Amino acid sequence: MSEIEPFFVMEIQRRALELAASGRDIIHMEIGQPDFGAPAPVLHRARQALQESTLGYTETAGLPTLRQTIACWYHHRFGVALSADRILLTTGASGAFMVLLGSLINPGDEVLLPDPGYPCNRHFVRMFEGKAHLVPTEAQHGFQPTVAQLKAHWGPRTRAVILASPANPTGTCIEPAELEAIHAWVREQGAALIVDEIYQGLVYERPPYTALTLGDDIFVVNSFSKYFGMTGWRLGWLVGPAECQRAFQRFAQNAYICPPALPQYAALEAFGTDSLAICEAQREEYQSRRAVVLQHLAAMGFTVPAKPDGAFYVYADCSAFGRSSSELARDMLERSGVAITPGRDFGLAAPERYVRLSYSQSSARLEEAMARLRHYLARG
Amino acid sequence: MSEIEPFFVMEIQRRALELAASGRDIIHMEIGQPDFGAPAPVLHRARQALQESTLGYTETAGLPTLRQTIACWYHHRFGVALSADRILLTTGASGAFMVLLGSLINPGDEVLLPDPGYPCNRHFVRMFEGKAHLVPTEAQHGFQPTVAQLKAHWGPRTRAVILASPANPTGTCIEPAELEAIHAWVREQGAALIVDEIYQGLVYERPPYTALTLGDDIFVVNSFSKYFGMTGWRLGWLVGPAECQRAFQRFAQNAYICPPALPQYAALEAFGTDSLAICEAQREEYQSRRAVVLQHLAAMGFTVPAKPDGAFYVYADCSAFGRSSSELARDMLERSGVAITPGRDFGLAAPERYVRLSYSQSSARLEEAMARLRHYLARG
Repeated sequence: MSEIEPFFVMEIQRRALELAASGRDIIHMEIGQPDFGAPAPVLHRARQALQESTLGYTETAGLPTLRQTIACWYHHRFGVALSADRILLTTGASGAFMVLLGSLINPGDEVLLPDPGYPCNRHFVRMFEGKAHLVPTEAQHGFQPTVAQLKAHWGPRTRAVILASPANPTGTCIEPAELEAIHAWVREQGAALIVDEIYQGLVYERPPYTALTLGDDIFVVNSFSKYFGMTGWRLGWLVGPAECQRAFQRFAQNAYICPPALPQYAALEAFGTDSLAICEAQREEYQSRRAVVLQHLAAMGFTVPAKPDGAFYVYADCSAFGRSSSELARDMLERSGVAITPGRDFGLAAPERYVRLSYSQSSARLEEAMARLRHYLARG
Repeated sequence: MSEIEPFFVMEIQRRALELAASGRDIIHMEIGQPDFGAPAPVLHRARQALQESTLGYTETAGLPTLRQTIACWYHHRFGVALSADRILLTTGASGAFMVLLGSLINPGDEVLLPDPGYPCNRHFVRMFEGKAHLVPTEAQHGFQPTVAQLKAHWGPRTRAVILASPANPTGTCIEPAELEAIHAWVREQGAALIVDEIYQGLVYERPPYTALTLGDDIFVVNSFSKYFGMTGWRLGWLVGPAECQRAFQRFAQNAYICPPALPQYAALEAFGTDSLAICEAQREEYQSRRAVVLQHLAAMGFTVPAKPDGAFYVYADCSAFGRSSSELARDMLERSGVAITPGRDFGLAAPERYVRLSYSQSSARLEEAMARLRHYLARG
């Protein structure tokens, strides 16, 4: 494990917390989590579970009623008919990736991942002695890989491709037609297509989408963390082919016994009408915030080469300021009290050119952050 | 991962749940979890956290106040001075083993574990391409390995020893003098001594103990699951040398970001006077149950070659009944509705001779279970 680099956003967060503890007012644009907590109906159900259940272990795959609830939601929302047996509740999306890659990857297997991308995904590959092969992407394709790029990077040991849509750090979605072409190619190679959909639902100018519409052989990772605002609850899920479920459950049993019980009871309310109405109102709020941030960044001289479709991130090119993004992020935190994440967390292709800003803050705080940035950049 | 055998207790539990769903009254003596839930003060604190916190990610190592609370408890209860920096909160004890073995083990490294023992521990070793080397133990030593046995099984790639006290499936504790000798030997070899103390506090005729009294180089895994009755909450902790903490946190960040937030807030109350008084009353209840089960088992012809010191398990020799423990457990479940765990989950040395019975049931239910067993055995 000594190869696995630290996760820089957490280091920046630590420094930000230190500064805050010393009395500074820090604006956290480095954090990848919603500022909204769980919707009220979910909290209500959690209180009920605290009262009614001893909260022992659940089934390793999760509460059968919750698996069924998720299956119904896929059917209702996306028109995808899915047996509840194909859904495994997990300890966060992290748990889903662990189960999935722990089950699929043998030492030496290669996994293709887009660069830039969320760092933990490639770290999981290495954790199981696989080789994470980063595929540089282009801004003109929304930092999503094309089927042609994946073909060019394909090797004899390539065992899987991991995509994310909406993606972190860019907020961009992959076009369904491109994904379909990628799916066809990956299937032809007998490899696995894994799609990280943890920001599903948080999209602003297009309908939510799931890769499961393309076929039963796709692996999808999802979570209650983002759209439902439940990061600290640590509950996610994994959808995969029926024939993989036994292996997944066996791995999960050994790795963590079962996902946490209380969040599972609480999540039974997540897909209810009242809860979804709250989440949709929050989505609209994010959409306004995105507009605020994009407008200010453009005025300050940042460029955003791929407009984010979803999530709550902007991946901005800061090369106009004549410093690496790491230097800029560090200095900006110390001098203006605004924490952002340098690109080096997300890949090797052009990390020093980009920073990630998260707009999971109130519009008022975002305006304040933008004012501080403007002032900071003006001082030079 | 295809090498990792299923965890039989979970399979038996699944069959038991099926039978229960079909209307049968099943007594669950296969389950390794307390029937008591969390103490009332912990539940109260959980309700408060639901109200006051958005329950976002916590620090990867866990809430600083909870780490401090645990450190104080070690000092107060065991006289061990421990910096809070040496404590990592984890997603259950499973998370602690994952972080520990994921950080310590390189492919091909060997880890010595007692046989019988808790199966997940050896599975974690294999998950990281290590080799779990089982050391057969003897009933006369309480199924705990002696330093002489460990020396005999030591090899050039041996990197760690994992012990458990009280142990699962036997409920036995290792004698402090033997542990001290083992510690000295392991240290001399430059290897790691890992002690699983997740049943700490659940001991009946001796004071609770921690291996941390022996030195700063020992790794200890603990959990809120057993003594505090919080299995489904998935919160544990890992104590290790200061110099390992950065590697642990890095691994944990990547593997699961942070342990679940709500259980951490709730656990702040676990070591309070009111909570401990409740847990102590429960411990006394377990002690009575142990007496009930031991008495009945002896009368029926089971032998218990090592009297359990703690936990809530009896590891009983069923060879007098002329069938393997697997056959006996399966048949007994179908015909008497009492679920127990066959020895094969716990090792290779003599698994078909033993069954594990968990007495985490009310005395009334245990009496009923014992009556059913007596009736079942009488029918032959």
